[in-house]
Amino acid sequence: MRFTVTYRILGNRSEARAKANDICIEQSIEFPLHLVRSRRIKDRVVGKLLSLHKCGTRAFSADIAYAEETAAGELSQFLNVLFGNSSLKPGIRVEAFSLTPRLRRIFPGPRFGVAGIRRLTGVKRRPFICAALKPMGLDARELADLAYRFARGGVDLIKDDHGLSDQVYAPFDERVARVSEAVAKANAETGLACLYAPNVTAGPDHVLDRGRIARRRGAGALVVSPGLAGFPSVLALRQDPLVGLPILSHPALIGSFTVNADSGIAHRALYGLLTRVAGADATIFPNYGGRFSFTRHDCQGIVEGCSESFGGLKPCCPAPGGGITMDRVPELCDFYGRDVIFLMGGGLAGAGDDLEENCQTFRRLVGG
Amino acid sequence: MRFTVTYRILGNRSEARAKANDICIEQSIEFPLHLVRSRRIKDRVVGKLLSLHKCGTRAFSADIAYAEETAAGELSQFLNVLFGNSSLKPGIRVEAFSLTPRLRRIFPGPRFGVAGIRRLTGVKRRPFICAALKPMGLDARELADLAYRFARGGVDLIKDDHGLSDQVYAPFDERVARVSEAVAKANAETGLACLYAPNVTAGPDHVLDRGRIARRRGAGALVVSPGLAGFPSVLALRQDPLVGLPILSHPALIGSFTVNADSGIAHRALYGLLTRVAGADATIFPNYGGRFSFTRHDCQGIVEGCSESFGGLKPCCPAPGGGITMDRVPELCDFYGRDVIFLMGGGLAGAGDDLEENCQTFRRLVGG
Repeated sequence: MRFTVTYRILGNRSEARAKANDICIEQSIEFPLHLVRSRRIKDRVVGKLLSLHKCGTRAFSADIAYAEETAAGELSQFLNVLFGNSSLKPGIRVEAFSLTPRLRRIFPGPRFGVAGIRRLTGVKRRPFICAALKPMGLDARELADLAYRFARGGVDLIKDDHGLSDQVYAPFDERVARVSEAVAKANAETGLACLYAPNVTAGPDHVLDRGRIARRRGAGALVVSPGLAGFPSVLALRQDPLVGLPILSHPALIGSFTVNADSGIAHRALYGLLTRVAGADATIFPNYGGRFSFTRHDCQGIVEGCSESFGGLKPCCPAPGGGITMDRVPELCDFYGRDVIFLMGGGLAGAGDDLEENCQTFRRLVGG
Repeated sequence: MRFTVTYRILGNRSEARAKANDICIEQSIEFPLHLVRSRRIKDRVVGKLLSLHKCGTRAFSADIAYAEETAAGELSQFLNVLFGNSSLKPGIRVEAFSLTPRLRRIFPGPRFGVAGIRRLTGVKRRPFICAALKPMGLDARELADLAYRFARGGVDLIKDDHGLSDQVYAPFDERVARVSEAVAKANAETGLACLYAPNVTAGPDHVLDRGRIARRRGAGALVVSPGLAGFPSVLALRQDPLVGLPILSHPALIGSFTVNADSGIAHRALYGLLTRVAGADATIFPNYGGRFSFTRHDCQGIVEGCSESFGGLKPCCPAPGGGITMDRVPELCDFYGRDVIFLMGGGLAGAGDDLEENCQTFRRLVGG
């Protein structure tokens, strides 16, 4: 079986065809084809160009099929086949990809997905609202106090700022214990089921441990940044039986993949499909019209990549953030619909002196 | 103590200043400054703009200093401070950075460096030559046979193609065992000390195990792709006492950071400094004038980032590859000098029917 990757390639037709044929080699055997003696390798290992069609001014769309064996059943190597060496060449962009049935078993997608987050939080039909613990520099008690007030105010999720890792200001273990406890206390008082998502981003020697510690301390979800820890860390957390919590993927450091429209990986493929295939239950990305440069079209693409039918994988929940303020919530509800997590950080702190009241306002604005 | 990051920012002076001030916040507390009540956080956690000067047409260079505590002594979080959220914004490029003494102890750089690779291979003064095991699709016996002939021909290093992971064609354990044995046999016959570098790129649940297995099986070095496995995987391999082998970093999937000259991370900072700080002993990158688009200037930058004085870290060895052929070697010796590893893959196979003879030719061309 083969899986297919769709690339957008700049050039006229003959240039695009030459580049597409190069990609077939570069992303598989990376070896001059005329020196390959084995018919089996030529037929069954090298990528195959299935189609090439014009998709814009000096741009062509190429579908290339790769043998599933080349991906070795590993996300790191799947990423390598998808775009490893071709990322080094300008004018090539990954637009979409498919999985074979065998790869779908190995990359089973979100464990919880949108429906699972609804079940855990008890939020039936409206958008979810999420607050962020920051600024960095507060100690674990201060963060726990903040979390308590957010949870009392009725937010559905509270995430660590993605920059909180294991700083001396609020070390990981202490922070996770204190914040989890504060959120549990608030939940007991409100009867709600707010989930706390600590940031477990770390190297290979720590990331799974942090996920397990988070689970043991009573956290309700996790934040991880695949750009910092590697996409395989998301999958490893998703698959670890001692973790078993919803995963929010954060886009730190992966911006360079989408910052140029002619290279890298399309928003839909990166923040949507790939994040979903890695097993994230929600994908955080910069909302359009905030302090980042994502467009409505980019964000629409992410929503599609999160929710489109994809071999039975559960939908991943889009989680736009980055400068969302109260006045924008009604418009964003119209744009994103109900299967969305709205992240508000600074906007929630800046909406008034009473944080609980701000959370209640936020909740009312999404119909809660 | 603070470490400094130099960003190149597009815009006129006032735009660049505004963007630089935003970066100070975005890369530290990511929270509206006017809402921060703590003087300590404002003074000691937020990034500080040290200088801003014109460095091109509508381009400014900004030095921003961050408190070392924000990096939490972790490479994942150091990367986040360096460029996490700012990677999502166009027109910002990381040009360089420094480390504090404490961070240099945590990120001690290459264990072996150029001098260490000379000691292990016995190559005194000339450039190193490296062959690659490919194409994917050969079985472990065929790869071992290839490695035997490379080693008999006198190459200094033999690396797995970065696409060889744990495919059914040549599973990791079997490949590493057979190839290590074949190289040891050739070394016993030639009296040379060729190093075999298997590719250990994998997720957090496997990457350290593969490094340890490689060591136990007799491999002499490792290949890892930080774009696939995450930069912290390089550091974890470098620090693991049961691994202890030279590390060759491969650029798969990190091309998107350098493909646009106005965004991402400069070649010198990415393939040079950052790869060196992560602990790689050699950094593989596409040579200028091959099938990739790196320029002489880009490659010169990488050499500088590898070798410039950097707080006592050992130099990392530049390892250009990607379409190098015999006829280019003399020119490349002039350009790179002697502290370089030349990678030849297809070029070595294509230089004639006798692979051993081709290796001998390659070796003579670098003065060996």
